[in-house]
Amino acid sequence: MPALRVLSFGLGPIGAATARLALTKKTIQLVGAVDIDAAKKGKDLGAVLGLAPTGVIVSGDAEAAFAELRPDSILHCTSSFLPVVKEQLLVAARHGIDVVSSTEELLVPDLQHPDIAREIDEAAKKGGATILGTGVNPGYAMDTLAVFATAACRSVEMIECWRVVDAGKRRLPLQKKVGAGMSADEFRKEVATGRFGHIGLRESIALVGRACGWKLDTITQSVESVIAERDEKTEFLNVKKGQVAGIWNHGIGKEGGRVRVEMDLKMFVGAKDPFDAVKVTGHPPMHLRVEGGTPGDLATAAMLVNMLPRVAAARPGLLTMLDLPVPGIAT
Amino acid sequence: MPALRVLSFGLGPIGAATARLALTKKTIQLVGAVDIDAAKKGKDLGAVLGLAPTGVIVSGDAEAAFAELRPDSILHCTSSFLPVVKEQLLVAARHGIDVVSSTEELLVPDLQHPDIAREIDEAAKKGGATILGTGVNPGYAMDTLAVFATAACRSVEMIECWRVVDAGKRRLPLQKKVGAGMSADEFRKEVATGRFGHIGLRESIALVGRACGWKLDTITQSVESVIAERDEKTEFLNVKKGQVAGIWNHGIGKEGGRVRVEMDLKMFVGAKDPFDAVKVTGHPPMHLRVEGGTPGDLATAAMLVNMLPRVAAARPGLLTMLDLPVPGIAT
Repeated sequence: MPALRVLSFGLGPIGAATARLALTKKTIQLVGAVDIDAAKKGKDLGAVLGLAPTGVIVSGDAEAAFAELRPDSILHCTSSFLPVVKEQLLVAARHGIDVVSSTEELLVPDLQHPDIAREIDEAAKKGGATILGTGVNPGYAMDTLAVFATAACRSVEMIECWRVVDAGKRRLPLQKKVGAGMSADEFRKEVATGRFGHIGLRESIALVGRACGWKLDTITQSVESVIAERDEKTEFLNVKKGQVAGIWNHGIGKEGGRVRVEMDLKMFVGAKDPFDAVKVTGHPPMHLRVEGGTPGDLATAAMLVNMLPRVAAARPGLLTMLDLPVPGIAT
Repeated sequence: MPALRVLSFGLGPIGAATARLALTKKTIQLVGAVDIDAAKKGKDLGAVLGLAPTGVIVSGDAEAAFAELRPDSILHCTSSFLPVVKEQLLVAARHGIDVVSSTEELLVPDLQHPDIAREIDEAAKKGGATILGTGVNPGYAMDTLAVFATAACRSVEMIECWRVVDAGKRRLPLQKKVGAGMSADEFRKEVATGRFGHIGLRESIALVGRACGWKLDTITQSVESVIAERDEKTEFLNVKKGQVAGIWNHGIGKEGGRVRVEMDLKMFVGAKDPFDAVKVTGHPPMHLRVEGGTPGDLATAAMLVNMLPRVAAARPGLLTMLDLPVPGIAT
């Protein structure tokens, strides 16, 4: 197999980590990079990533870069929200370029945006491109892991997932994303925007529900703050006792009034004993646990890169993790 | 989607459990059954399974049943060994019938039988059939779970898997398979036949090695007895202190002298705290654990049935768990 010719689209913290990982893989040749940030455009990708020169110059024009470089695939890390990335994905689809994206809403694209999902799916099929949204969460720790757990079951009644992340060990954007150091009032105002905190819990619930054949008619979630019980100090910021240490995101998926999927995500500075866990109520019951949890930033970059060869081999269209081969490391 | 028309081939304990499960699934229509046992031939499948009449009569002639019933897929549970099932699979392949099989050596069919694997693969492609070997172990607890764990990793150095099964809670054939109640001498003689105990550890090691891109040049395994430290009593038999309580199967896969995969399976009467665990040494490391373990007999039937729709949708050929979509429950 010749190496996949890959373009990195979006060089924020996750995109940069993903590009750095892609550069280490024998089966991937990084042929291009795109970012709209004026501070990155025109620079060697190596300089942007804090590495030696790569010979790849960061472009500010995705469509021009696609047309010129004709990559097989793009690693796409630009936004959490499908309406924001819609045009980016359509351009890739029309050029027949496969996409592995960290866009959280793309995990189950038709959940919140059925029209956009249909348009992208049609463009992908027409252009011969495969498009997938994934990452560690959503994409792995709270959804695909739960689906995997059900494979050993004759029947399944309900699925519960927990994830506890020590935000103090994560990058600054994640610490800010969970509100560390905010007052409770500031936190509530941010939550009211609908664009704050973890994005994708609804999509995780929907993915698990679909895998189990449940028609979830209600998917609800709540976002609360976790208040620091003592002063906490991370590499990047301080959280005083009484300030917000992080986020508690809780979601439920119901089928005909019956709770089928329940998810509980806590990400805060000072969390002790982080872990991921899945409990399947069924026959037989299954309890899976990731001791210490799946490390977020590392694992998101890993999932994006590891799914690349699987996406390259898949049929065209807007697919989900349920359509792709079992995830595993790419060599 | 119309229901899959499925034939159950082999009605021993695992085959019968699989057929019973298939009968509960809306997406499966059990249209036929085959077994060479004279005591089962000509009977209604329901009578063989201890259920109400099904209208399906057990046939002793697989080829005639395939030709007459033209099933979409077969659930195949006849033997652990690929040479024994070769002709059965070739007949299915030539009829274009998909196969999900519990044959342990079929997990990685070309590991021990490359010529047979090639012949079956060619027949399957020509006939338009998809053929897969799976189960709980091999197929899930010590291999596909380990592959799944690596999806969160940037790089992987080594994989270790443990599985501890309380054989006292399993069916009688499993208790006999692990030698419960034998003397240490009897156990050694059985081990020397090469057809005793757990079959498939080498295939599990090979599957994990391939998923990680390692060229394992040596796969070795040892089979030892676990001696009862006290008298044990199961539903089916008694094990006296000093007799064999079960089996300890240990295997190693090396690449250029370096241990890449290590697997440790203990199945014995009286095992405390059964569990499955995967430890990935890598960046990041991953520790997955199935609390209480994956229940063997239930989960093997579940895996076979749950993979059916995935196999039905896959491309033709002799495939492995690495080629199929992420396992999960079939509805």
